Amino acid sequence: MIAAFRQKHPDHPSRRNVYTRLAVAVAMLMGLLVLPVASPADPPPSALPSWNDGEAKAAIVDFVERVTYVAGPDYVAVPDRIAVFDNDGTLCSEQPSSIQLAFVRDRVKLLAPQHPEWKEKEPFASLLKDNLAGVAASGEKGIAELVMATHAGMTTETFRKIVRDWFATARQPRFDRPYTEITYLPMRELLDYLRANDFKTYIVSGGGIEFMRPMTEEMYGIPPEQVIGSSIATKYELEGDTPVLMREPRIDFIDDGPGKPVGINTFIGRRPIFVAGNSDGDYEMMRWITAASGPHFGMIVHHTDGEREWAYDRRSDVGRLDKALNEAPQRGWLLVDMKADWRRIFDFAE
Amino acid sequence: MIAAFRQKHPDHPSRRNVYTRLAVAVAMLMGLLVLPVASPADPPPSALPSWNDGEAKAAIVDFVERVTYVAGPDYVAVPDRIAVFDNDGTLCSEQPSSIQLAFVRDRVKLLAPQHPEWKEKEPFASLLKDNLAGVAASGEKGIAELVMATHAGMTTETFRKIVRDWFATARQPRFDRPYTEITYLPMRELLDYLRANDFKTYIVSGGGIEFMRPMTEEMYGIPPEQVIGSSIATKYELEGDTPVLMREPRIDFIDDGPGKPVGINTFIGRRPIFVAGNSDGDYEMMRWITAASGPHFGMIVHHTDGEREWAYDRRSDVGRLDKALNEAPQRGWLLVDMKADWRRIFDFAE
Repeated sequence: MIAAFRQKHPDHPSRRNVYTRLAVAVAMLMGLLVLPVASPADPPPSALPSWNDGEAKAAIVDFVERVTYVAGPDYVAVPDRIAVFDNDGTLCSEQPSSIQLAFVRDRVKLLAPQHPEWKEKEPFASLLKDNLAGVAASGEKGIAELVMATHAGMTTETFRKIVRDWFATARQPRFDRPYTEITYLPMRELLDYLRANDFKTYIVSGGGIEFMRPMTEEMYGIPPEQVIGSSIATKYELEGDTPVLMREPRIDFIDDGPGKPVGINTFIGRRPIFVAGNSDGDYEMMRWITAASGPHFGMIVHHTDGEREWAYDRRSDVGRLDKALNEAPQRGWLLVDMKADWRRIFDFAE
Repeated sequence: MIAAFRQKHPDHPSRRNVYTRLAVAVAMLMGLLVLPVASPADPPPSALPSWNDGEAKAAIVDFVERVTYVAGPDYVAVPDRIAVFDNDGTLCSEQPSSIQLAFVRDRVKLLAPQHPEWKEKEPFASLLKDNLAGVAASGEKGIAELVMATHAGMTTETFRKIVRDWFATARQPRFDRPYTEITYLPMRELLDYLRANDFKTYIVSGGGIEFMRPMTEEMYGIPPEQVIGSSIATKYELEGDTPVLMREPRIDFIDDGPGKPVGINTFIGRRPIFVAGNSDGDYEMMRWITAASGPHFGMIVHHTDGEREWAYDRRSDVGRLDKALNEAPQRGWLLVDMKADWRRIFDFAE
C-alpha cells in the first residue's frame, strides 16, 4: 500500500510523513517488545556513566526520578522542568583563565599593531606581556575597556565569525586541546540525562552571551536561545540598504552574582527547579532557585582535583567559592567533589 | 506481558514509559493505516480553516511546505524554524486601546484613593476621567509614569498575581468578553500550523514582558520563555531571609521599532525566518528578518474590517501602519486583508 502510494506520487511532500511515521512506529514497537524484558530495578543503563556510584550521583538520580514520576507527590510538569548551569568552572575548566579571557588576549595581540598606544596603556600593556595580575589590577574598568576594544564596533554576524574562527585554532595551554574539548564529561552526561527526562537546559553565565552562543550547541547541545549571559548594547542600523545589528561599546547587562536571577527571570520568566554552579558568582541564583516551595535541586561543582584538573576554592582569584561553600550544608546544596565523584573528567583523558 | 509487568511492579516509575510507548505506537499505526487513503493532493485537513482560500493562505502554506520539504532547495532545519509575532493588533485587538492600557486604567482607578494627588496630576487626572487624548498628550514621559505607578514597587510574583486576577474579571468593552477571548482565531490557527511544522513561535511585542507572560500560554499556547517585550528593571533582594525579585521604577528595555530586532537577537540569538506584524512598530523587525539570504516570510495584518473588528492604518494613533504599508510590495511582504482573507475573526462570533 505504501509502496504503491510512493510510486504514484513520487514528489509529493506528504510522502515523507508516511516514512517518518513508519520509522517511528517500528521503533516504538521494538521498544515495546524489548522494554519489559529488562529488569525494572536496573538504573537507566546510560545515565551518568562517568560519575562514580555514591551520594552525589544517587541524589541527582533520586531528584530526577521524583520530579518525573507522574503519580508521585513531587511530580513536575514538563514545561516547568527548567535546569540552569553556570558555564566557566561548572561545565568547563576556567583555569588558568576563562576561555573568554584567552580570546581577549589573542584578539588584543592580533590588533596591537593597529594600536601602538596599547604598549603604554593599561590594561593592554599588561595583557600584551601576559601579566594577568596586572590586568586584574586594572579592575572592572580595565576589563570593560578590554571587552570594548575586542567585542564592539562590528556587526553581530562579524563577531560571530571571529569567535568561530578563534575556536577553530586556539588551544588550551595545559592540555594542548581545542577549547571545545575542555568541557566536563560528567556534566555533559548530566545535561543529556536531564534532557532525556524532558528538562530544558540553559546556560546562565557571567560570560558574554554572544561569545558563548556560536559554540554552545557543539559543546553542550544547548541552542543559542537557551544561553543567558552578559551583554554589550546592540543597535539596529542600515549598512547601505541592509539592516544590521551593530555592537556598541557600552555594557548592557552583567549576568553575574545578583544579576543571574534577574537574567533568568528576564529570559525564562519562570523559576528553574535545578541549578548547578561552582562559585560565589552563582550564590544569588542558587539562593533564589532553592527558596522555591516546590521541588528543587542545587549543586556546586567543587574543584578538588589538582591532578586531573585544578584544586581551588576560597582563595582563588578565578571562580572563588567561599560564601556558597559555607552555606551549602544549611541550604541543602549538593557539593560535588570532582576528585571523588567523577570517574573521568575529560573526553580526552582516561 | 505488559499486564504481568504492571502487576508485578505497580509502583515503578518506568511503568509509565511502557504505557506512553504503547499509546504512541498505537496512534502511529492508526495514522499509517489511515494516511494513504487520503488523497495526497488534499491540503492538510485542519490547517487554517478560518482563512478563506486565496492568495494569502496559499502563500503561507507554500512557504511552510517549501521550508519543511527535506529534499527541496528551501529546506530549513528544525532548530532554525523560528517564527516571531507582534502581539497587539497582530494576534489580538488593540482598539480602542491596548489590553495593557486598559489594565493600567483599571489599576489607576483602584489605587486612586491612596493617591489623592492624582486628581490634579497628569496623566493620572486624564486617565481617571477616561480622557485617552489627554493621556496621549502627556507623551512618553507620561506613559512611563503610569507604568511605574502601576507596574513597579512589588515583587515579580505579586505582579504576576495582579495580572492574572485582572484578566479573570476585566472585559473588553465593545465585545463584552474577557480579554483572553479577543485573540484572532486565524492567527491562532497559524501559530498551531507553524508549530505542527516544528516552528518555535515567539511573541515580540512593545507590551510589557511580565504583563504578557502570565497569559500567553492560555491565549496562544506560547510559554513565557518565548515572550519578548518591554521591561522595567528588576533587582534581587532579600525579604527577611527570602530571596525575591523586586520590580523597580526604571525602564530597562523598549521592545518597539528598532528595539525589536535587538530584542530578538538578545533573547533568541538567531534570525527568525517568519515574521508577522501590523504596524510601523514592526517595520525594523520585518526589514531585518526579510533581509536574510535564506528562505524568509514577512506578513502584515491589515485592519480592513470595520464591521467585525476595526478598520485603520495610516492615520490611527493606535497601531499606525504607514511606512510598512508603503514598502510592503517592494519588500515582498504579504498584506493580509482581514476582511477578505479571514472567514472568521473571533471564536465568539460566527
